[in-house]
Amino acid sequence: MEEAHGADGNVEGTQVEIAVMEAMHKVVPPPPRSSLDKIKVRLKETFFPDDPFRRFKGQPPKKKWILGAQYLFPILGWVPTYSLSLFKSDLVSGLTITSLAIPQGISYAQLANLPPIIGLCLMADSSFVPPLVYSILGSSRDLAVGPVSIASLIMGSMLRQAANPRTDPYLFLQLAFTSTFFAGIVQASLGIFRLGFIIDFLSKATLTGFMAGAAIIVSLQQLKSMLGIVHFTKQMGLVPVMSSVFHKTDEWSWQTILMGICFLALLLLARHVSMRRPKLFWVSAGAPLTSVVLSTLLVFLFKAQNHGISIIGQLKSGLNRLSWDKLLFDSTYLGTIMKTGLVTGIISLTEGVAVGRTFASLKDYRVDGNKEMMAIGLMNIVGSCTSCYVTTGAFSRSAVNHQAGCKTALSNIVMSVTVMLTLLFLMPLFVYTPNVVLGAIIIAAVVGLIDVPAVYHLWKMDKIDFIVCLCAFLGVLFISVQDGLAIAVGISIFRILLQITRPNIVTLGNITGTDIYRNLHHYIDARRVPGFLILAVEAPINFTNTTYLNERITRCIEEEKAVDHHQAVLRFVILDLSAVPTIDTSGVSFLVDLKKSMEKHGFELVLVNPVGEVMEKLQRTNGVHNFFGVDSLYLTIGEAIISLSSLLKEST
Amino acid sequence: MEEAHGADGNVEGTQVEIAVMEAMHKVVPPPPRSSLDKIKVRLKETFFPDDPFRRFKGQPPKKKWILGAQYLFPILGWVPTYSLSLFKSDLVSGLTITSLAIPQGISYAQLANLPPIIGLCLMADSSFVPPLVYSILGSSRDLAVGPVSIASLIMGSMLRQAANPRTDPYLFLQLAFTSTFFAGIVQASLGIFRLGFIIDFLSKATLTGFMAGAAIIVSLQQLKSMLGIVHFTKQMGLVPVMSSVFHKTDEWSWQTILMGICFLALLLLARHVSMRRPKLFWVSAGAPLTSVVLSTLLVFLFKAQNHGISIIGQLKSGLNRLSWDKLLFDSTYLGTIMKTGLVTGIISLTEGVAVGRTFASLKDYRVDGNKEMMAIGLMNIVGSCTSCYVTTGAFSRSAVNHQAGCKTALSNIVMSVTVMLTLLFLMPLFVYTPNVVLGAIIIAAVVGLIDVPAVYHLWKMDKIDFIVCLCAFLGVLFISVQDGLAIAVGISIFRILLQITRPNIVTLGNITGTDIYRNLHHYIDARRVPGFLILAVEAPINFTNTTYLNERITRCIEEEKAVDHHQAVLRFVILDLSAVPTIDTSGVSFLVDLKKSMEKHGFELVLVNPVGEVMEKLQRTNGVHNFFGVDSLYLTIGEAIISLSSLLKEST
Repeated sequence: MEEAHGADGNVEGTQVEIAVMEAMHKVVPPPPRSSLDKIKVRLKETFFPDDPFRRFKGQPPKKKWILGAQYLFPILGWVPTYSLSLFKSDLVSGLTITSLAIPQGISYAQLANLPPIIGLCLMADSSFVPPLVYSILGSSRDLAVGPVSIASLIMGSMLRQAANPRTDPYLFLQLAFTSTFFAGIVQASLGIFRLGFIIDFLSKATLTGFMAGAAIIVSLQQLKSMLGIVHFTKQMGLVPVMSSVFHKTDEWSWQTILMGICFLALLLLARHVSMRRPKLFWVSAGAPLTSVVLSTLLVFLFKAQNHGISIIGQLKSGLNRLSWDKLLFDSTYLGTIMKTGLVTGIISLTEGVAVGRTFASLKDYRVDGNKEMMAIGLMNIVGSCTSCYVTTGAFSRSAVNHQAGCKTALSNIVMSVTVMLTLLFLMPLFVYTPNVVLGAIIIAAVVGLIDVPAVYHLWKMDKIDFIVCLCAFLGVLFISVQDGLAIAVGISIFRILLQITRPNIVTLGNITGTDIYRNLHHYIDARRVPGFLILAVEAPINFTNTTYLNERITRCIEEEKAVDHHQAVLRFVILDLSAVPTIDTSGVSFLVDLKKSMEKHGFELVLVNPVGEVMEKLQRTNGVHNFFGVDSLYLTIGEAIISLSSLLKEST
Repeated sequence: MEEAHGADGNVEGTQVEIAVMEAMHKVVPPPPRSSLDKIKVRLKETFFPDDPFRRFKGQPPKKKWILGAQYLFPILGWVPTYSLSLFKSDLVSGLTITSLAIPQGISYAQLANLPPIIGLCLMADSSFVPPLVYSILGSSRDLAVGPVSIASLIMGSMLRQAANPRTDPYLFLQLAFTSTFFAGIVQASLGIFRLGFIIDFLSKATLTGFMAGAAIIVSLQQLKSMLGIVHFTKQMGLVPVMSSVFHKTDEWSWQTILMGICFLALLLLARHVSMRRPKLFWVSAGAPLTSVVLSTLLVFLFKAQNHGISIIGQLKSGLNRLSWDKLLFDSTYLGTIMKTGLVTGIISLTEGVAVGRTFASLKDYRVDGNKEMMAIGLMNIVGSCTSCYVTTGAFSRSAVNHQAGCKTALSNIVMSVTVMLTLLFLMPLFVYTPNVVLGAIIIAAVVGLIDVPAVYHLWKMDKIDFIVCLCAFLGVLFISVQDGLAIAVGISIFRILLQITRPNIVTLGNITGTDIYRNLHHYIDARRVPGFLILAVEAPINFTNTTYLNERITRCIEEEKAVDHHQAVLRFVILDLSAVPTIDTSGVSFLVDLKKSMEKHGFELVLVNPVGEVMEKLQRTNGVHNFFGVDSLYLTIGEAIISLSSLLKEST
């Protein structure tokens, strides 16, 4: 802190100058490491950034076994210390989410185009096995597992391209199970191979737009049951659905519309109340089941099915049947199945992991992303063999679970058992449940996915994020669910590449009276140093941007020459590499060529503060050419300027 | 600058502290700019980094017209001042490259699978029109334009998938012209829409591997003529070619092999002499034509065609015919044509621009990349209508052109006219030219593309660049030319994304006795500051890395806590954002969440030196939450530590 750099101790004070020179700090290469070491570190950072084996270090072997078992089966972590008071909380929250799971599950099976008669059983199954599996393997305490709207929608819409659920329900069911199996495989392998970062490529902006678009698509599909239309389009897009709705005005049924509007209003009101007063969470949690019971009673009492209101109708009841014999690996459908599995797998994984992380950070515990992927993947693999379609952690139910005070994954087991018992014994009652109420429940559930404040926030913060969001939204609405997603991801990645291809180069100036150098265009009290042009590159230097950097730096020098007439003539170009984290061979050649070309034009290029990797590579070039020696490498801009100024004085 | 943040100066040394505080500098947001301004700047940097309109600024209208015309037609720049002495140089170099262009052109037409009888005419045409067009539009003075080996090879191998050049030569010719047309369209549009940076994605490493692989593929194809095999495989890969060679040992002709080896040795010797002594460039420049003349004479004198040596045979002679009526836009072939056009267009563009830039930097003039693309694109569009296939600036001939002392693009015109005259009047002489000599010429030409020292340099400098190079090489050899290229580009891009997804986070320490903070693992004299953890993030913070950063920073804190027992307890985490050029909405939320979660654990998060864009976005968050106020934003690490240390003292 007692450094006196920037003190230009000009004419006489040679003594001072020498002292300053001696205090100068050399740029040294980082301590040598073998290539193997470097590769090991890089691989570790890429695949094990959370260092999952840290806790095993220095433990006795027996403890290691216990820790290993607890890592694989998180249930072992909480079961030994489980208490009655914990069970009370879990029971309450388990029962609360059951009341939400039943109506939502029935509705979502419709979204996946599963005919209600199979759909309901399937939903019961999907709410039974997966939560059990998850409660053993999953590390989140709040996740409520089961079918979710978006994944159901995507699966339904993608499989419909290969099989017609109405004319060939058995084939459709086979495809659904097989896709679920593939989704599970994809999810588990992402976890096992520690490729969890792939879901990070779905940014918040992408998901916001995608969810909003999907919510609208889902809601539009409900117009069929909300309006009582019998012959509805099979397409999903905004345009065909709206045209179908307005071409079938003769099929609209006022009784259905009236009932739909009433129950939708009721559900939205309940939602509003719960959002205003989080303590009243049970209002919105209980509203769907209440609506189902109420509407079923109404239909039953008034025999409304004879007055244009369509009902679920006859149902088979029963427990989970093994379905691994229904998995279909026929080459005709394999393409569709794998594509569907991949898309639904990644989407449902994203939702599950995001929900798990959100509530983990609220309660301040950690969820291991890769571990979670393996749990969700295994859950779907097991699920596909026991008559379940794709399941994950649902946001709405997890929120209710959290608010109802769940403590461990046992609430999932409670839910699973309750759903099973309910459906086993009360199944016949659902015969009279009107489809219109299921539609209203879906709309009320997905409305929450349209997050207008988040979109506004994107607009305020970052225009490109907003564009990404908009593209995802419009793509889903007008092209297709999967293409909308692909376009948004493509734009997000292209944006990152563009930032690398066109990096920021800023001109730095000295903040008067200090040793601080900052962007001239940012800090108005920063001043140019006569005779010097100080540039900072703010990106890795690699093959994508060397051409640009060359052109840009040439332009900077020309502009500087044009401006700087009255001041000292430009002599040194200082390139601050502090913000250049990596460099590749093209980058190194670029620096070497730049230095040569500068020398040709009478300037000298000086580098400041190359970080570890960059310094290492420059040193390797030095071995060959000795281009960047002691007098063209400095640790700070201040030291470079002091040292070069004295050179300048000597030469004049 | 007189801001006194955090200064609650209560203890003894208040005077000193206040003095220090007064010297403290505030982080200010950059001067406000409208979104439109920012978008304008970004678009300019993306598409016009070289600022081509700069020279027009402040000029009178007439001058602007002249400059504009000179920009579009660089020929106008040098014709008015052209002199006899310049012409002398251009004539010599033009004649020198002619002697190289004729034998190479005949050979390359074979690579493109064009039967020699058409190929020779085509070659003559391709060496006539394109150089004329280029000399008008191109800005490089050294580029020698004509057919090149790699583009010929790719075109031949890709088109062969759609048409058989032996059974259906007319269709094949149509496809070749149409692909050339598409290649020209692609090239010109890249230039017009200023998307020239797309070719930057072909890194040096990719090209080194690709060129070496392609050179070997090309050489292998020459085994047909070198060994005199009649029934040769039509595939390109290493495996099928070698198996074909060793299954046809009965077709080997010793006369052909002997002749081939002799001439190949001659050519390689000439190449070696010229490389050793650059002044003797004419040795290797003249060797191919000498070989053709010599071998033709030998064949003619000894009637060698009757002794197992295959010759070119009967040729049509004639000038360029218009071929726009041969352009074929049939939907059956459109896919192949567009793919071929795209690949050959980009590859030949890369070669042309790279060669142009190399010689421009040697002679210290500028080549405008986008302008050059338009010139090469137009040259190919015109070429496709005048019986030419794809052409670009060839490295070998441009080097000879440069060494022979060319001054302007007139050497291209000289070459073009000479080639035409030669072929018009001397065509019948080529009837007796043996194919084996053409093979030897090709091998001698492409051997130079295998750049072993460059590969060794890649291995020394950067292991991943080496892997990229190796993948391109093996991909070309064992899969296919275009797939090898695609794989290498894919790996290069994936590597960049991975660097963003897994950015460097370094722990900084104070270099004793100074105000400098550097990486603890790099500078051994850097020391930890007790009570502080100073981290620097070296990448943009965005959706791809927030999860990782969160995990990594948590791990850093835990490691720090584990180490730091005897020292002061950890209280402040300083995040140096100097090397974070951009941030997106996910990044901002990450910082906000990180601050909250740190506070929960009893730490305080302090940010240092956010650059313009990052500061702007943090400020927008401040508008809502006031998260990053004056006491958690500092301009330098040193100032942050002084200010926070005093806080620490107060609290204890």
